[in-house]
Amino acid sequence: MPPTDRFVSETRFYVRYAETDAMRIVHHASYIVYFEEGRSDYMRQRGQNYAQFEHEGLFLAVVEVNARYIKPVVYGQQLLIRAWIEEMGSRGLTWGYDISDAQTGVQHVTGQTKHICITADGRVARLPDHWRAAVHAPKTE
Amino acid sequence: MPPTDRFVSETRFYVRYAETDAMRIVHHASYIVYFEEGRSDYMRQRGQNYAQFEHEGLFLAVVEVNARYIKPVVYGQQLLIRAWIEEMGSRGLTWGYDISDAQTGVQHVTGQTKHICITADGRVARLPDHWRAAVHAPKTE
Amino acid sequence: MPPTDRFVSETRFYVRYAETDAMRIVHHASYIVYFEEGRSDYMRQRGQNYAQFEHEGLFLAVVEVNARYIKPVVYGQQLLIRAWIEEMGSRGLTWGYDISDAQTGVQHVTGQTKHICITADGRVARLPDHWRAAVHAPKTE
Amino acid sequence: MPPTDRFVSETRFYVRYAETDAMRIVHHASYIVYFEEGRSDYMRQRGQNYAQFEHEGLFLAVVEVNARYIKPVVYGQQLLIRAWIEEMGSRGLTWGYDISDAQTGVQHVTGQTKHICITADGRVARLPDHWRAAVHAPKTE
Repeated sequence: MPPTDRFVSETRFYVRYAETDAMRIVHHASYIVYFEEGRSDYMRQRGQNYAQFEHEGLFLAVVEVNARYIKPVVYGQQLLIRAWIEEMGSRGLTWGYDISDAQTGVQHVTGQTKHICITADGRVARLPDHWRAAVHAPKTE
Repeated sequence: MPPTDRFVSETRFYVRYAETDAMRIVHHASYIVYFEEGRSDYMRQRGQNYAQFEHEGLFLAVVEVNARYIKPVVYGQQLLIRAWIEEMGSRGLTWGYDISDAQTGVQHVTGQTKHICITADGRVARLPDHWRAAVHAPKTE
Repeated sequence: MPPTDRFVSETRFYVRYAETDAMRIVHHASYIVYFEEGRSDYMRQRGQNYAQFEHEGLFLAVVEVNARYIKPVVYGQQLLIRAWIEEMGSRGLTWGYDISDAQTGVQHVTGQTKHICITADGRVARLPDHWRAAVHAPKTE
Repeated sequence: MPPTDRFVSETRFYVRYAETDAMRIVHHASYIVYFEEGRSDYMRQRGQNYAQFEHEGLFLAVVEVNARYIKPVVYGQQLLIRAWIEEMGSRGLTWGYDISDAQTGVQHVTGQTKHICITADGRVARLPDHWRAAVHAPKTE
């Protein structure tokens, strides 16, 4: 379940037919792409932009992915992906995700991705402080 | 590392350009598809065929995926995926994977996928004994 | 260019990082999926639903795809896909597409897909009249 | 049909489950990726390497794609993709493709992709003569 003490982004989108497979459900690798779209939109909602992050010569390399598939999704469903920062370090961070049906709220998939900040030539780097502050603000009402 | 006490399949293939991303490396979701191709080929090498498995009305639903990204892969590399069965139960199983460079042997990605056997209408089912025996044989010299 | 004498759907979405490739641009096969999302949304905007179409035992099989790549797209861009029906026959139809930047209006890709209506066992079938009427209405002000 | 007066590459591979869709057939966008794999392997078979081509600062941008879908492919099939150069110009070239079942020879999909040679900053460039000569040799017995 998404945490209640920090910012949680919400992104709605329709399943694409290309993302289904011959079991007539969304293919399990598609959710890894949904996670990515969830954290991209998390950044946009925080006023940040991963394209800009890259223009500064930094990259968030994925070092680990975990996904738990609770209930299959079929074509025609609109999904809601919630994304949040589970852990923020000086050189990396972990995002958490929860994917549910946008209409019924039924939970489908949960997961995490772990990232480290690297430069264009692959060296581990510090996450810029201004970026950390902007991205990982506690929830404010 | 792949275990030494059981059958380990080996599959070689070239990275496809479509599987790379703007970081100029193979996109992390592509490896989840490589895992799938690894276990498909594992089954073919054991004389089994997942298409045939489905014709009998059974499916191996993915319930969990884990991947650890050790070193990026670039276009032009030929990869070697090793796949094996980590755990075999009566209604499910876990595959393990190791992806390395087919020429240099450098390790790139490791992971597991956990599956349960279901029928076409989604009920959990027993894995057929003959299939379990064929697929999960100990290593023989 | 989209025609002016009939309904043209408009769908906006952000490029996904997974859809880029090592040339740092959106991979050319991704647009074929965007076309599909364009016509899915066209149907939703006409009050139809391709999932429902399939529940009635009919499918729109793709028999031809053409795409012209005018200008590359990069991660960070929001795209606008316009979709319309170029030709509607009794057993098939052709969709046209125009993909441009949602902010600047710069044109990126154009294309067509040709479809025939088939049953679950692959026989060519008539498109239901009510579906044709609903989907292919002339523009009304 | 592949021409008989020039080199035609042959590449065999198994359909991946991720490439199928809810119609239980290979998704039409997957073939665009197969075309790409076909021409990548064409180059490898001519002793060339697209990765090396890029290291020299040149890229083959796709400017047009056409595909005709003759008969659906299902999971479990092994495919044979034949690729050849339909036309070779000073600044671009066109590849042709024929995808059939590797066992039965039944034809499934045909297509073309048109490319221009560009530099890293997007300017049209001449295809290197040595590369043209190596890639587009007439058939020799």
